[in-house]
Amino acid sequence: MDPIRIIEVKESVFADNDRQAEALRGQLRGERTFLMNLMSSPGSGKTTTLLRTIEQLRDELRIGVMEADIDSAVDAETIGATGIRSVQLHTGGMCHLDAEMTRQGLAAIGTEDLDLVILENVGNLVCPAEFDTGAVKNVMILSVPEGHDKPLKYPLIFTVCDALIINKIDVLPYFDFDMEKVVEYARMRNPKLEIFPISAKTGEGVSAWTDWLKQQVKAWNDPA
Amino acid sequence: MDPIRIIEVKESVFADNDRQAEALRGQLRGERTFLMNLMSSPGSGKTTTLLRTIEQLRDELRIGVMEADIDSAVDAETIGATGIRSVQLHTGGMCHLDAEMTRQGLAAIGTEDLDLVILENVGNLVCPAEFDTGAVKNVMILSVPEGHDKPLKYPLIFTVCDALIINKIDVLPYFDFDMEKVVEYARMRNPKLEIFPISAKTGEGVSAWTDWLKQQVKAWNDPA
Repeated sequence: MDPIRIIEVKESVFADNDRQAEALRGQLRGERTFLMNLMSSPGSGKTTTLLRTIEQLRDELRIGVMEADIDSAVDAETIGATGIRSVQLHTGGMCHLDAEMTRQGLAAIGTEDLDLVILENVGNLVCPAEFDTGAVKNVMILSVPEGHDKPLKYPLIFTVCDALIINKIDVLPYFDFDMEKVVEYARMRNPKLEIFPISAKTGEGVSAWTDWLKQQVKAWNDPA
Repeated sequence: MDPIRIIEVKESVFADNDRQAEALRGQLRGERTFLMNLMSSPGSGKTTTLLRTIEQLRDELRIGVMEADIDSAVDAETIGATGIRSVQLHTGGMCHLDAEMTRQGLAAIGTEDLDLVILENVGNLVCPAEFDTGAVKNVMILSVPEGHDKPLKYPLIFTVCDALIINKIDVLPYFDFDMEKVVEYARMRNPKLEIFPISAKTGEGVSAWTDWLKQQVKAWNDPA
């Protein structure tokens, strides 16, 4: 495996992040590349979920992964070991990515020959939700050990996401996690939210999630 | 139980947060009040750990709790149910507290007759670490389900903390969490870090943590 490329991405000097995000989406539309922004708390299983997602979709879609972190390259190395094209983005201490940082990452990975690029955002339920990265869809993971009250405490991220993956359902017996309540609280924030309970560890529920994602990618890349 | 007071705290208009934090510590020193700043990811068990801490120390120390969140008052309600004085601080969407926001919270809760005030910061491993709140000691929780690689990815918070609580050790058998590695990585960031593996759920390990905290409080409030 080639050594992981580490890209130091720099915050935009432009004030209008939303306009830059729209421009980036326009460019991706032209290239028939779907960008997915994946957000969650630290340790909710973003990278393991990506491994499962890659496993299910790599025969049908050409996939690339951008791993954003403040430091280290452990996640990009994990993804790189699958043979999938990946880069590690370092944010210089920043708690989120903006559209310009995402653009720099996309330029580094090269998107012309990719159907799906997944951005694994910095582990944080607050700041990443405030910045449109230019992604076509936003997806978040909430893991069972984090508790079912999170939509009450971190409302914005549930509002801006299109899909919620509830990960680590294999450990449900060991935690006081109320699946009905989390669905109720999450839908209170966002009635249209798609919800996928999965275990990235055992594979349970993963295909419902990847079927949905595949559909979104096809709708974007091959509009009727 | 009285209804929970919700305080909307506002970011400082002053540039020099460090100086304000020092001033706040000076004021607390005069009042013989110890302020502890508790940080972690969302869902790592801050509130449950506080409940255990209160249970162990309430006979010896007069304790108050400030719960910071973007929205909801669920944590302050949980603490309030113990009969301990508590307020809920709302940050208006902000991902952290600065010294001025902390000062507003302390003014609201009233510190003259308290030995120990615990600030439960917004659940986030990035932003809270960047702001001195005026606390005497910073403490963080990392929970077993989050994984042992977190000191590699979120270096600053491990550097600024005096103690690291490793929570949810009761579920160690169900996760690939390497205790030796997490200690090695955390000490790499901060050789002086005190480390307390606990289960806030079962109570295991809690007394080592509360003994340390009690010692810190006494050293601050009754200097020789």
